[in-house]
Amino acid sequence: MNQKPMPPSERTRVRRVADRGRYDRAILHAILDDAYLCHVAFADDRGTHCIPTACWREAEHLYIHGSNGSRMLKLAATGSQVCVCVTHLDGLVMARSAFHHSMNYRSAVIYGSFEVVDGAAKAAAMDAFLERIAPGRSAQARPGDVNELAATTVLRIGLDEAAAKIRSGGPKDDESDLALPVWAGVLPMALQGLQPVPDGVQGSLPEYVARWGDLTATA
Amino acid sequence: MNQKPMPPSERTRVRRVADRGRYDRAILHAILDDAYLCHVAFADDRGTHCIPTACWREAEHLYIHGSNGSRMLKLAATGSQVCVCVTHLDGLVMARSAFHHSMNYRSAVIYGSFEVVDGAAKAAAMDAFLERIAPGRSAQARPGDVNELAATTVLRIGLDEAAAKIRSGGPKDDESDLALPVWAGVLPMALQGLQPVPDGVQGSLPEYVARWGDLTATA
Repeated sequence: MNQKPMPPSERTRVRRVADRGRYDRAILHAILDDAYLCHVAFADDRGTHCIPTACWREAEHLYIHGSNGSRMLKLAATGSQVCVCVTHLDGLVMARSAFHHSMNYRSAVIYGSFEVVDGAAKAAAMDAFLERIAPGRSAQARPGDVNELAATTVLRIGLDEAAAKIRSGGPKDDESDLALPVWAGVLPMALQGLQPVPDGVQGSLPEYVARWGDLTATA
Repeated sequence: MNQKPMPPSERTRVRRVADRGRYDRAILHAILDDAYLCHVAFADDRGTHCIPTACWREAEHLYIHGSNGSRMLKLAATGSQVCVCVTHLDGLVMARSAFHHSMNYRSAVIYGSFEVVDGAAKAAAMDAFLERIAPGRSAQARPGDVNELAATTVLRIGLDEAAAKIRSGGPKDDESDLALPVWAGVLPMALQGLQPVPDGVQGSLPEYVARWGDLTATA
């Protein structure tokens, strides 16, 4: 796998708090792999749009999919320029001054255009997506038939022009505020799995359902 | 407060799975109030961009803020058209067929343009933001001074052209798949508070810190 750093472009170089910028592929991959969804920004003759959609990474591409009827997918399939963003909120940073309050987060931004994934690669991509969400499930669920696959559009975007931005750690208060009698620190948060809700009569419990409650901030 | 339904525009009318569209203000407000951050899509001469940023709602506006130096805020302050999106992922929907897998979510999309919030309204908005995150904290933390406020841009966008989209509940399998011996149901998830991490020596514990672990999917 390509482990070269990604040279920042004019669009991906982080300028605000530049030391939060990250241009390593391993960091970018980890942020994308923690995500179930991304936001896709694109423009058409009615303006600029921002649409959330499920995503998954394979090697140096991020994949999305949906119904052929989706306006966003139809436009993205033409190769129109898009910007894709993935963001994880990791905590609220409580400083001693109102001004220095912040948030801990990991975000990734990808510029480029999507390409259509078709034929055998399309079916393989959909299997990979299901495996990402629930390991082993693509062998359990009924596979997509010809009509279902034909009704689905799968797109992918390369990670060539991409960057990550991360804030972590405690508050950065002014020296003169450090003695103020106010609680300071981080209130961490994470996307966590809650009790599964079975639908109808069930057979044996797959491992990914039994362990669902263990999920912490990772997909 | 204005409780009239929002008539869908050409841009906000939900077309894909139209019965997931919601045009009630109370539902829109609840989705925005559950969010700590939004994604802002905008276009400039370098293309279309998508940037995550903290947000909070007051009445019929969504607010964002940041450093005066932020390119996104500088452009948004000119009144350029933007699209703002808030998304909550509530669960993975595991169907008996690969095709009918889905996700439960609540999302809100706002079209329009930001306006600058200045003067006394600016200081009040920043106080409101801190209160939203931690009730009582705006009276505890050192308030922003003249220089700190001057270095901060606060913007707001009206909720005039906005809509919500929601998926909830279990899988919608084909009748012919219902007897398949595969686990089906929902794997719910929520953003949850984890153990607070104090910074330095601490005084008394505020209520919002003591109760942080109780947070479940709500801001």
